[in-house]
Amino acid sequence: MNIITLTTDFGLADWFAATMKGVILSIQPDAHIVDMTHDIRPGDIRAGAFALAAGCRFFPKATIHVAVVDPGVGSERRAIAVRTSDYFFVGPDNGVLSLALAGENIKAIHRITNERLFRHPISNTFHGRDIFAPVAGHLSKGLPVRRLGPAMKSFVRLPRSKLRRLAESISGEIVYIDRFGNAITNIGDEALGSPPDSSPEVFVRRRSLCFLRPFYQAVPHGKPVAVRGSSGFLEIAVNGCSAENRLRLKIGDEVTVQLKSPQKTSTS
Amino acid sequence: MNIITLTTDFGLADWFAATMKGVILSIQPDAHIVDMTHDIRPGDIRAGAFALAAGCRFFPKATIHVAVVDPGVGSERRAIAVRTSDYFFVGPDNGVLSLALAGENIKAIHRITNERLFRHPISNTFHGRDIFAPVAGHLSKGLPVRRLGPAMKSFVRLPRSKLRRLAESISGEIVYIDRFGNAITNIGDEALGSPPDSSPEVFVRRRSLCFLRPFYQAVPHGKPVAVRGSSGFLEIAVNGCSAENRLRLKIGDEVTVQLKSPQKTSTS
Amino acid sequence: MNIITLTTDFGLADWFAATMKGVILSIQPDAHIVDMTHDIRPGDIRAGAFALAAGCRFFPKATIHVAVVDPGVGSERRAIAVRTSDYFFVGPDNGVLSLALAGENIKAIHRITNERLFRHPISNTFHGRDIFAPVAGHLSKGLPVRRLGPAMKSFVRLPRSKLRRLAESISGEIVYIDRFGNAITNIGDEALGSPPDSSPEVFVRRRSLCFLRPFYQAVPHGKPVAVRGSSGFLEIAVNGCSAENRLRLKIGDEVTVQLKSPQKTSTS
Repeated sequence: MNIITLTTDFGLADWFAATMKGVILSIQPDAHIVDMTHDIRPGDIRAGAFALAAGCRFFPKATIHVAVVDPGVGSERRAIAVRTSDYFFVGPDNGVLSLALAGENIKAIHRITNERLFRHPISNTFHGRDIFAPVAGHLSKGLPVRRLGPAMKSFVRLPRSKLRRLAESISGEIVYIDRFGNAITNIGDEALGSPPDSSPEVFVRRRSLCFLRPFYQAVPHGKPVAVRGSSGFLEIAVNGCSAENRLRLKIGDEVTVQLKSPQKTSTS
Repeated sequence: MNIITLTTDFGLADWFAATMKGVILSIQPDAHIVDMTHDIRPGDIRAGAFALAAGCRFFPKATIHVAVVDPGVGSERRAIAVRTSDYFFVGPDNGVLSLALAGENIKAIHRITNERLFRHPISNTFHGRDIFAPVAGHLSKGLPVRRLGPAMKSFVRLPRSKLRRLAESISGEIVYIDRFGNAITNIGDEALGSPPDSSPEVFVRRRSLCFLRPFYQAVPHGKPVAVRGSSGFLEIAVNGCSAENRLRLKIGDEVTVQLKSPQKTSTS
Repeated sequence: MNIITLTTDFGLADWFAATMKGVILSIQPDAHIVDMTHDIRPGDIRAGAFALAAGCRFFPKATIHVAVVDPGVGSERRAIAVRTSDYFFVGPDNGVLSLALAGENIKAIHRITNERLFRHPISNTFHGRDIFAPVAGHLSKGLPVRRLGPAMKSFVRLPRSKLRRLAESISGEIVYIDRFGNAITNIGDEALGSPPDSSPEVFVRRRSLCFLRPFYQAVPHGKPVAVRGSSGFLEIAVNGCSAENRLRLKIGDEVTVQLKSPQKTSTS
């Protein structure tokens, strides 16, 4: 339980992420802290939630995942800690934990109210340092999650992205664009049929774009390609280039996968 | 004494910060190295000094803080190590340590001259790797600071930023702008009166801008707000946006806090 | 053998580098992972190779260096691990290891084929996480490199950069530009004569630019200077500014060092 990951929008240019680490190490000198990312766009709760959900399951059991994308810091929003079969999750109750928790077997949800665990004085603008970091440190030392505060029955969930399954197609949307300019959709691998036989056609904003291929270089340099992405979702890429720039993709764009052969359905 | 923090302008794009870590680990395999930040603007000694001062006190006692913003590397500027009641500080004697040391109880100042401790050959352009990293490694293993070189009586201090206290107002300036675009001033919290009763008016460049509020979302989205920042200083922010961009703030801008009610003093 | 460095083009904005660390820590909880850099330009194998070569030798013996700049991921390109007198190197066989290996005493080269060591299911787009990270974890725990797969006789080498030695001059090229805008050449220190007596003239694109000096501030602010860089190669810099921007330098620009006094050779 000494691995603690940090997912924040604090950036690395200032000292904010570092002070979270200093506070954690002051409580738990044996903590092994791993930056999931600190480069979430400021206040972009959904992007933070996606990064946490995409990354958390590659860590050992009992890892403590802390996510702080917290534009409402200091206001009435709650702070929560969630114990699942595999992990602990700590953060503001604003949805930033919700996409990760959707894939977890939840055991306990607790509101964080036990001020004796916090760093004092508690600032109104940096609960990452004063509340979430010390709580993570104490959990790492074995403090039971129930000691953080009262049990809760639910937590704030982000609205689901659109996903529509028909007999011969599945439609979803672009939910994240990574540093390579690859567009990650909400269409899960399991919906795409069994490789390597299946290579369905992919439409973006209702126009045919490309086919599903096993890897990026399966198409010539500069050409679009859809792949089963490493996060378990269909990705739109351009071999050797940024799909975001080349194809002017953006978050929310509709993506459709034609699961059966296009001859059957297309007559135009 | 195995925690070592690094504050530099080396960035993370190249291998420079990593080689400092390699050198430290070659001397002290048990070092726990934490990046305070490597994204100080190249050569900006004051920004490095501010980041170190803002971040250092959140680390456990006996942490070794290394700061290398060192445009004069290879020239006649000295290298120093300072032992305080709580920490060690290591870096060039160009002022980069001075803002942090202003808040510390200094026990010993030593010039770093003991070449046997250095990495050889010593480059003329990267003392972070060849002098400061090995010195930090040796201190972490328990080497007394006096073994580094001769004792000194003083060190280079950066000129103080302007701060003027009157009976009913306090005037300072913007000294740092963080990744959120929040403008951090040199006006300490203690000058602002006791929360939550006090909510003084704040002027920037002599124009009324906003009032002190407990947190960012205490004002509507897009509106300016002043808060007691997490670093212990008054901050100018815009809820949900960059104050730097929205208000065209820059380092050096004058900020005034009207501590008593403006009716008493304003007649115009 | 518990130090593992990572050199990739995955960036720090997403969760990719973090998941490599999660996978390594799942296998080897005692791993001490150091980021060499994750900011290699996407797909720029030569820049990744240069960063690895420049940084690797500052780490303790038995460090495991992992480099993943891998535009051909999922295609037929091989994965290799190389044991040298001092280190292990792990990555795709596309040249990214080759500049580092040119300075090493190679003991064994093995293709990585032992799928039992991999993370499953193996994605086609992220071998950093599914193949190279687990292999590094297993090596760190003491697995002999021969257990990874069959021995190989050679590996892919990047084409050498141009370097031409004459009696009184040496010509090379700019091979890397760092975050300060300093231009690093392929002209090794050992070709420059013994300091401090030698201060040869340096030409860029066949025009005289500056002289070799011991450090950046040996010339006035804003003036060009050549120094023996910290990576062991001649560097072109501008004191206090970016040489890249000021002098419009770019990778591949020819650089010539006039080793003897120019009067002897120049008559034009």
